[in-house]
Amino acid sequence: MIEFDLPAISQFVDEHVIPLEPLLLSQQWSELNSALSRIRKKVKYQNWWPTHPELKPMPLYHMGLLSEIVGRSPLGHYAFGFQAPDIGNMELLEQFGSAELKNKWLRPLKLGDIRSCFAMTEPNNPGSNPTLLSTTAEIKNDQWVINGHKWFTTSADGAQFMIVMAITDPSAPKHLRASMILVPADTPGMKLIRNIPVMGHSGHGYFSHGEIEFKDCHIPVNNLIGKAGQGFKLAQHRLGPGRIHHCMRWIGVANRCFDLMCKHVKNRQITDQQVLADQALIQAKVADAYTSIQAARALVLNTAKHIDDTNFEATRFNISMIKFHCADMLQKVINHSLQCLGSAGMSDDHIIAYFYREERAATIYDGPNEVHQLSLAKQILKSY
Amino acid sequence: MIEFDLPAISQFVDEHVIPLEPLLLSQQWSELNSALSRIRKKVKYQNWWPTHPELKPMPLYHMGLLSEIVGRSPLGHYAFGFQAPDIGNMELLEQFGSAELKNKWLRPLKLGDIRSCFAMTEPNNPGSNPTLLSTTAEIKNDQWVINGHKWFTTSADGAQFMIVMAITDPSAPKHLRASMILVPADTPGMKLIRNIPVMGHSGHGYFSHGEIEFKDCHIPVNNLIGKAGQGFKLAQHRLGPGRIHHCMRWIGVANRCFDLMCKHVKNRQITDQQVLADQALIQAKVADAYTSIQAARALVLNTAKHIDDTNFEATRFNISMIKFHCADMLQKVINHSLQCLGSAGMSDDHIIAYFYREERAATIYDGPNEVHQLSLAKQILKSY
Amino acid sequence: MIEFDLPAISQFVDEHVIPLEPLLLSQQWSELNSALSRIRKKVKYQNWWPTHPELKPMPLYHMGLLSEIVGRSPLGHYAFGFQAPDIGNMELLEQFGSAELKNKWLRPLKLGDIRSCFAMTEPNNPGSNPTLLSTTAEIKNDQWVINGHKWFTTSADGAQFMIVMAITDPSAPKHLRASMILVPADTPGMKLIRNIPVMGHSGHGYFSHGEIEFKDCHIPVNNLIGKAGQGFKLAQHRLGPGRIHHCMRWIGVANRCFDLMCKHVKNRQITDQQVLADQALIQAKVADAYTSIQAARALVLNTAKHIDDTNFEATRFNISMIKFHCADMLQKVINHSLQCLGSAGMSDDHIIAYFYREERAATIYDGPNEVHQLSLAKQILKSY
Amino acid sequence: MIEFDLPAISQFVDEHVIPLEPLLLSQQWSELNSALSRIRKKVKYQNWWPTHPELKPMPLYHMGLLSEIVGRSPLGHYAFGFQAPDIGNMELLEQFGSAELKNKWLRPLKLGDIRSCFAMTEPNNPGSNPTLLSTTAEIKNDQWVINGHKWFTTSADGAQFMIVMAITDPSAPKHLRASMILVPADTPGMKLIRNIPVMGHSGHGYFSHGEIEFKDCHIPVNNLIGKAGQGFKLAQHRLGPGRIHHCMRWIGVANRCFDLMCKHVKNRQITDQQVLADQALIQAKVADAYTSIQAARALVLNTAKHIDDTNFEATRFNISMIKFHCADMLQKVINHSLQCLGSAGMSDDHIIAYFYREERAATIYDGPNEVHQLSLAKQILKSY
Repeated sequence: MIEFDLPAISQFVDEHVIPLEPLLLSQQWSELNSALSRIRKKVKYQNWWPTHPELKPMPLYHMGLLSEIVGRSPLGHYAFGFQAPDIGNMELLEQFGSAELKNKWLRPLKLGDIRSCFAMTEPNNPGSNPTLLSTTAEIKNDQWVINGHKWFTTSADGAQFMIVMAITDPSAPKHLRASMILVPADTPGMKLIRNIPVMGHSGHGYFSHGEIEFKDCHIPVNNLIGKAGQGFKLAQHRLGPGRIHHCMRWIGVANRCFDLMCKHVKNRQITDQQVLADQALIQAKVADAYTSIQAARALVLNTAKHIDDTNFEATRFNISMIKFHCADMLQKVINHSLQCLGSAGMSDDHIIAYFYREERAATIYDGPNEVHQLSLAKQILKSY
Repeated sequence: MIEFDLPAISQFVDEHVIPLEPLLLSQQWSELNSALSRIRKKVKYQNWWPTHPELKPMPLYHMGLLSEIVGRSPLGHYAFGFQAPDIGNMELLEQFGSAELKNKWLRPLKLGDIRSCFAMTEPNNPGSNPTLLSTTAEIKNDQWVINGHKWFTTSADGAQFMIVMAITDPSAPKHLRASMILVPADTPGMKLIRNIPVMGHSGHGYFSHGEIEFKDCHIPVNNLIGKAGQGFKLAQHRLGPGRIHHCMRWIGVANRCFDLMCKHVKNRQITDQQVLADQALIQAKVADAYTSIQAARALVLNTAKHIDDTNFEATRFNISMIKFHCADMLQKVINHSLQCLGSAGMSDDHIIAYFYREERAATIYDGPNEVHQLSLAKQILKSY
Repeated sequence: MIEFDLPAISQFVDEHVIPLEPLLLSQQWSELNSALSRIRKKVKYQNWWPTHPELKPMPLYHMGLLSEIVGRSPLGHYAFGFQAPDIGNMELLEQFGSAELKNKWLRPLKLGDIRSCFAMTEPNNPGSNPTLLSTTAEIKNDQWVINGHKWFTTSADGAQFMIVMAITDPSAPKHLRASMILVPADTPGMKLIRNIPVMGHSGHGYFSHGEIEFKDCHIPVNNLIGKAGQGFKLAQHRLGPGRIHHCMRWIGVANRCFDLMCKHVKNRQITDQQVLADQALIQAKVADAYTSIQAARALVLNTAKHIDDTNFEATRFNISMIKFHCADMLQKVINHSLQCLGSAGMSDDHIIAYFYREERAATIYDGPNEVHQLSLAKQILKSY
Repeated sequence: MIEFDLPAISQFVDEHVIPLEPLLLSQQWSELNSALSRIRKKVKYQNWWPTHPELKPMPLYHMGLLSEIVGRSPLGHYAFGFQAPDIGNMELLEQFGSAELKNKWLRPLKLGDIRSCFAMTEPNNPGSNPTLLSTTAEIKNDQWVINGHKWFTTSADGAQFMIVMAITDPSAPKHLRASMILVPADTPGMKLIRNIPVMGHSGHGYFSHGEIEFKDCHIPVNNLIGKAGQGFKLAQHRLGPGRIHHCMRWIGVANRCFDLMCKHVKNRQITDQQVLADQALIQAKVADAYTSIQAARALVLNTAKHIDDTNFEATRFNISMIKFHCADMLQKVINHSLQCLGSAGMSDDHIIAYFYREERAATIYDGPNEVHQLSLAKQILKSY
């Protein structure tokens, strides 16, 4: 198994990735993309590309340690090639894709040569309940014909393929109605209506959330992933690891904000004799943020280890727990750091305001906190 | 004293002001400005312009009731002509401006013919301590000569004048060092360096926060507001009412978000039989948001009444209290509503994400929450 | 209408009621009872007995102002004769009791010559759902025959009568099954099994919570309050005002704790130069406690005024709101004050530890917070 | 190193220790003491006595696992012989006691044949600042002569000796003024004034907190622990491990409350069809309590491991962190469980009300939360 040189990677992120953030904050998309391409080459050259097809998969525990380092920048995971939603699609295709799909789509995806997206959420159905879908796929003339409407399809803009969740057997029992189908980007009938304006911006390319229409979109039957009716099961498989990937990344985001906050309060003069860091109410925020990060990190790494030792099924319990716990921790730490920076925290001169906007979604996507809380409690209460 | 027809105004806001919000969310500034000009004419035609020079000033209590209605839209106060920072400058000039300044600047400001701004905060000094300033104004040849650097000067872009806080006597006791000077927008030596990108946007015109440089900027001595050395005292006078104006507006913002949240959860189907509103965790958020709004509103209106009956000095105590209490309430209600809307809450299809971004500053500007908490406590503890 | 001299009453509480608290804290029941009897005579002599039969009933708003003053001591309401559960029973008998019941029981109760209690909660049924009861009352030979088991019957020990809620028509629709019957204390078949040990003590007399058994307990048919089947409706009538009485009292409890906390931190030396009050984290607690009390007080007094102007039905909405809001406020303020006193706060040298124990029930009795939150939300959401 | 059979111990606690709790709750001290003596014999017979002089000391990590099991009962640690304050005194004497003191006092203490206490806190000085003490010890005629006043000396009643912190050199630098002296219980001049009534009870024997007076109390010079002037250093040594012992025990308390809460809500019928556990607001409390316990547990066990691998000095940082984090977690879990049990939770029919009362002190003793927060923050901020 590979063991990455984490301190060296950390330094690389500081020196090469973080300096690109102003391009993101000022929406200079083409400059950003070129710069990221150069960075990715350097990362590969260093053999730090965790999804490289020739490497043995990394245990989740090590993935977690890597993730919290590169996650300090919103560009980090992309720079190292294991960004959502692609990493989830890789895991899905690895486990359930046919040899043909793997060869055609998975290999270039792992190499970072193409991008992908995952279309499940629909505007008229609650994202928290994947059994409620309106998009359909019927077989006609040996082809899937897809009709429907998806949104918040992250990174759809520019993706070479998407994995679409659609109802394939409306008369089956609830959890057996849907299937997953791989849809190439250039398929007629599929249309990216818009990049949804989110928190003030429509974004671009990888940094966007698409709204997509399917009108009689024809797809080869072999593009089915797994078996027909397995959609819900596969979604669970995909979302489980997806959630822990998010948690591991959030530790990195929280650490970054914490760092910026500590640096700022140590330097910000408030009287002739005092800096902000001398104030007890600031210190209380520092202690609270630090402790919250450490507690969340301990839970995440314990869970990762537990998954490495057993499997996702055995830990679904824990994944619900860390999903909402870490998402809450993240909001708190971001808010503490923004508050400590004051008006500077509101400005785009620092990354904190970006995290404040974008990561607000952490308590919403992949199951809102409320859903995970109830799900965790129900499982616990079963044993009483 | 005037008594506005609040239900009619509420309907007007719903029918004429709120429909303009998409122009704000999509940064269509010139369309927005034209539309707002048309609306302002209608408001004046209805005699709903609270700062009209011919009207007796409204008691704060009634201002509060008006504010919570128009405050439901980020365009509301501007549409009715009593938007910050202009309203604060009006109050300042009314009380401390010379007849000449009143005639030249206050009258058109009250009529909404011009805009203004207030330049106090500096990038290298804490905004919470107005005795710490680097900007200076010296008298040379019978003119003030201003040098310095300001930022987060809200609405500087396009303002016809600004009120600048500058050190005029560095050797005086701390609270007597600064003065306030009215600086016309076209004065050489004053330069709007940039509209600061805040929460992803630089904004435009009224909807912006400027960074400003003064290099040997010459101003007539008569442009002094009040007396030399009164700057700190005037800032207190200006900020006191300013804070209660914000609180009254926040009640409106919170009510708007609460409304959107209740409507959404009543309509959002989550299973065949249930809508979101049927879920206890959603109901708990509804109860919490409602109660928090009512409590904050009761405190604000009580304080307004108290000020009407006495004066600002007698209630500085209460103003600190409502400033941080309402700012915290606002963050909570916005977050509850965003969470209840889920991914739609993150999108710019609704106004909630805008409030989430912009109103995060509520716990920061005009004194961060921490400062007001300590200030309130110290005053309480004096009597023990 | 009477207007009590509140400052004089406040001084009386300080000088005569609060000094008796050590007798309560050390469970010297007989000394306490004698002392309270003497105090009650003085209160009556001053014409401060709000339930005196010759006085016109006090508006709730004024009751609230009185309650927050005498509520500063756990002995206050009893000393002034309007203590729960008697005050609730008075209101019930006043409105629904027959002339005979009023003459025999209400008059001496209002004069403080006797005590009473209210037996609704049962050990095997949830207190939050008064339609779920096991205690029954059947008419046999022109007498009610009661069988059942009650607990947390506050002040049963030594009460001259109790009002019992029992199922009188099990086949009726849910809300019409129960009735209320007045049971004299010496009735055979009724047995006080024990004073339930609560928070370490079984208490005594007025300061106790009884567990009671009814075995073929015969009661005259005329002891029915209101009509048969009205039990649930009467319970609502009784609990509505009961809840606002609690809220008004809690403001007093919170004020007392706040006072003790402020006094302590001003006097507690922590270094040669500093007292606790100089510490920002202490100041933050002071500001938080003060603001929370003011907000809760504003809501309670607004609600009382609203009830005075309309009626309880119109404000059930608001009563749910203040019930859980004030109960939460109270826990917070008690906890802040205990924390500020440190180990002294844990000791019975101060009243805070007593409030900490006894008032923990505030979020539980008369409907737990969770029930009121959901009830409030459901009513709000109806209008959307 | 010993490895205890934790599942067997857990069963033993359930079957033998927990059934004794009613004796504690009803203050039947002599019955309780006899029963505990019998239990302790059984524990020793099983070789489960962790402080036995013949055993190699247990690593903290294993101590933590043991502690969370026996800590489920307030009688657990005493039953297994490693209760505070004795365990802290053992560690102190082990490291700093003379051979004579070890032989005379440490050995029987480890065997559970005697009890001890630790007298540091004083009524007129803040417990959080061990450099502020009024108790003095002077050498006269080759004996220490102690004068002073201590309180909250846990378990003083019946202890065979106490370790007293006293100023021995008032002219030395602040941290070198105090020393620790072992005072046998029968020494003239030392007087247990009272067991302080705490949360309604004065307690008894081991379960008490004493107030103690020293008037010319003569002690042999050899009873000094460590060296003169080392008092403050020794206090740090003693309190560091003491704090982690508390944290480990609190996990047990929290687990016990969590268990009782889950059992109750699964069994408590609220309608014909539903139990409390079916309610989402209850489920949210279950999820919150569970997650909070797991996060605190992960931090405590990580810290214990870290201490085993390094030493206390290296982890003082972490100990401050877990002290306040676990104390807060404990208050939350106890409150959730009490709330879920409703009025039963207030009664002494369950252990929850006991924990609610006694463990409120967790955020106060051994340094209040506020002190640990600031201390943690200051250490973190040093590195920025």
